[in-house]
Amino acid sequence: MSPESPEFTTVPVSLGERSYDILIGPGLIARAGEEIARRLKGARAAIVTDENVAGHYLDALMESLKSAGIAATPVIVAPGEKSKGFATLEIVTNAVLAARLERGDAVIALGGGVIGDLAGFVAGIVRRGMNFIQMPTSLLAQVDSSVGGKTGINTAYGKNLVGVFHQPQLVLADTDALDTLSPREFRAGYAEVAKYGLIDQPEFFAWLEANWKQVFAGGSERIDAIAISCRAKAAVVARDERENGDRALLNLGHTFGHALETATGYDSSRLVHGEAVSIGMALAHRFSAHMNLASPDDAARVEAHLKAVGLPVSISGIPGSLPPAEKLMDYIAQDKKVARGALTFILTQGIGQAFIAKDVPFSAVLGFLQGK
Amino acid sequence: MSPESPEFTTVPVSLGERSYDILIGPGLIARAGEEIARRLKGARAAIVTDENVAGHYLDALMESLKSAGIAATPVIVAPGEKSKGFATLEIVTNAVLAARLERGDAVIALGGGVIGDLAGFVAGIVRRGMNFIQMPTSLLAQVDSSVGGKTGINTAYGKNLVGVFHQPQLVLADTDALDTLSPREFRAGYAEVAKYGLIDQPEFFAWLEANWKQVFAGGSERIDAIAISCRAKAAVVARDERENGDRALLNLGHTFGHALETATGYDSSRLVHGEAVSIGMALAHRFSAHMNLASPDDAARVEAHLKAVGLPVSISGIPGSLPPAEKLMDYIAQDKKVARGALTFILTQGIGQAFIAKDVPFSAVLGFLQGK
Repeated sequence: MSPESPEFTTVPVSLGERSYDILIGPGLIARAGEEIARRLKGARAAIVTDENVAGHYLDALMESLKSAGIAATPVIVAPGEKSKGFATLEIVTNAVLAARLERGDAVIALGGGVIGDLAGFVAGIVRRGMNFIQMPTSLLAQVDSSVGGKTGINTAYGKNLVGVFHQPQLVLADTDALDTLSPREFRAGYAEVAKYGLIDQPEFFAWLEANWKQVFAGGSERIDAIAISCRAKAAVVARDERENGDRALLNLGHTFGHALETATGYDSSRLVHGEAVSIGMALAHRFSAHMNLASPDDAARVEAHLKAVGLPVSISGIPGSLPPAEKLMDYIAQDKKVARGALTFILTQGIGQAFIAKDVPFSAVLGFLQGK
Repeated sequence: MSPESPEFTTVPVSLGERSYDILIGPGLIARAGEEIARRLKGARAAIVTDENVAGHYLDALMESLKSAGIAATPVIVAPGEKSKGFATLEIVTNAVLAARLERGDAVIALGGGVIGDLAGFVAGIVRRGMNFIQMPTSLLAQVDSSVGGKTGINTAYGKNLVGVFHQPQLVLADTDALDTLSPREFRAGYAEVAKYGLIDQPEFFAWLEANWKQVFAGGSERIDAIAISCRAKAAVVARDERENGDRALLNLGHTFGHALETATGYDSSRLVHGEAVSIGMALAHRFSAHMNLASPDDAARVEAHLKAVGLPVSISGIPGSLPPAEKLMDYIAQDKKVARGALTFILTQGIGQAFIAKDVPFSAVLGFLQGK
């Protein structure tokens, strides 16, 4: 770390002229004005946030921006997945236009994954692309959705089916913000942390098995886990920005997971995204074992760890009734990872050995789900 | 021309891996299936069009696609600028999702500039970017809006303020389609043809002065004029895809023009885009003369030619009452070519000598408009 920035870790995302830094550490909301003003000279800003996050952090962010000479307009939406739709997209877009922001000005996303995806989409389409700053306040957003430029909204046809790739100019992950998360929200974000170990870093997964309690408690292990996750995501995104190839590995657990989210109507009282991913990762490992691609012992080890931290690992763990396997398969077929009708899944040969499996037989997946 | 394609002219657009061809000539709607199938193997399609264009060409296009083995779903919207808004964007987006099209499938825009801008925006955001085919049926769309990847919709805050850059895989400009345009529509498109001469091709402008009657009548001069226009636009787009620099030259006449369109509420009975551009180009030349940048003789020559083809050249030529100059300046300030509050205009030193003028004094433009 450089002498003038002793408090945070910097993870660079290498994307040529679209490269940017992820800053991770405590106190970054208070420091935001300075960091943004240094990168976007003379810019004004709109802060997109939700009612809950605004109550915690909006004043501090406005104060920091003001001190750095950045005039900012807050745009506050309702919390939750319902704000990730066309109606709110139009409202926020018009609010940014009403503030007369220009291409060189910035949309700042202050919040979790919903806010980041929504605000990033707005930044990507107002004047065909404005500057964009991610300030993720949930663990899920800090380790996953704020990095890599995917933005979007949901429709009746599924989650994240409409959006753009639009990279931020800067990600400020203030780890102090995680202290206001509920244990359930923190756990849900942790599923994405564990995912990076399961994709291709078996030693990181083993480290998490040994150190997860410290990660949950906070301190340097938490910052390390976030930084390792961001570095893993940044490396994949640098190789394959637009998901033409192995960026799809990041969808480990997500094909099953999205289907379960659709099946539960995005009702967060039943299932949140990270929980769906946890079940999806457990299913992907069990299905891989079922297809004789991986050892059942590895599937058991994954389940044991996810269970230990308090995450769900099976469909039967979701409260309320669920549609039959056939209906889940419909949701899977509509998922955006479908190429020309063939099912593409992220499967594994063992812990840290995930791979993209194309042409997975529909009947094999259906049979597996029916057997559960 | 190559032996197997004797009937049409090909203009390449060089954008690295996003390069594509513009095919210009008669009979291209009937040939569309073959040309698309060759480039996008196995793709299905959605055809976005309006009620008027559908009546003329939808059956022929569906037939051509069917012969080439391309399954296509038509999505028909109301004609006119009103369809370029959030409401229709959502409807068309959902129609494309309902057809279960994937990233490798294509959205085909069959129509004028409104359809191309709307359908291109949909193609740019469904699954964060699908294949896109432009089939422009108006002169305006063939020489301007279908080339270069700008897509978007209008909002209450102005025209084209929301959209994405999304390049097509192919542009098919069937010149037979121009025969069903009204004389007024053809003239409006011609304003954009003349624009390319005025930007940096004085010899093309002189050729148009001598040959415009043949261009209006059809035949080889018309195809030549379209091809020269497309080549000019393709060259600018190749140099500056995202309008960070001299692509702004293509906005000659458009800053004044957009303000006039906003002032007339996009009421096409009073003013259509090409007419607004014609007035805007005349104003840009007169303002350049007023600022002692260009000779008044050049401004007079531009006016004379635009008038000769039947285009309007002054604000007083717009039917109905218009807001005062101060209000027009408000519209201009909201235009997207504004950078950090300074007014950027495309001005000229003479015919074919346009340039990007930054920091044009607000008061000078206001004074000029008040003097009209």
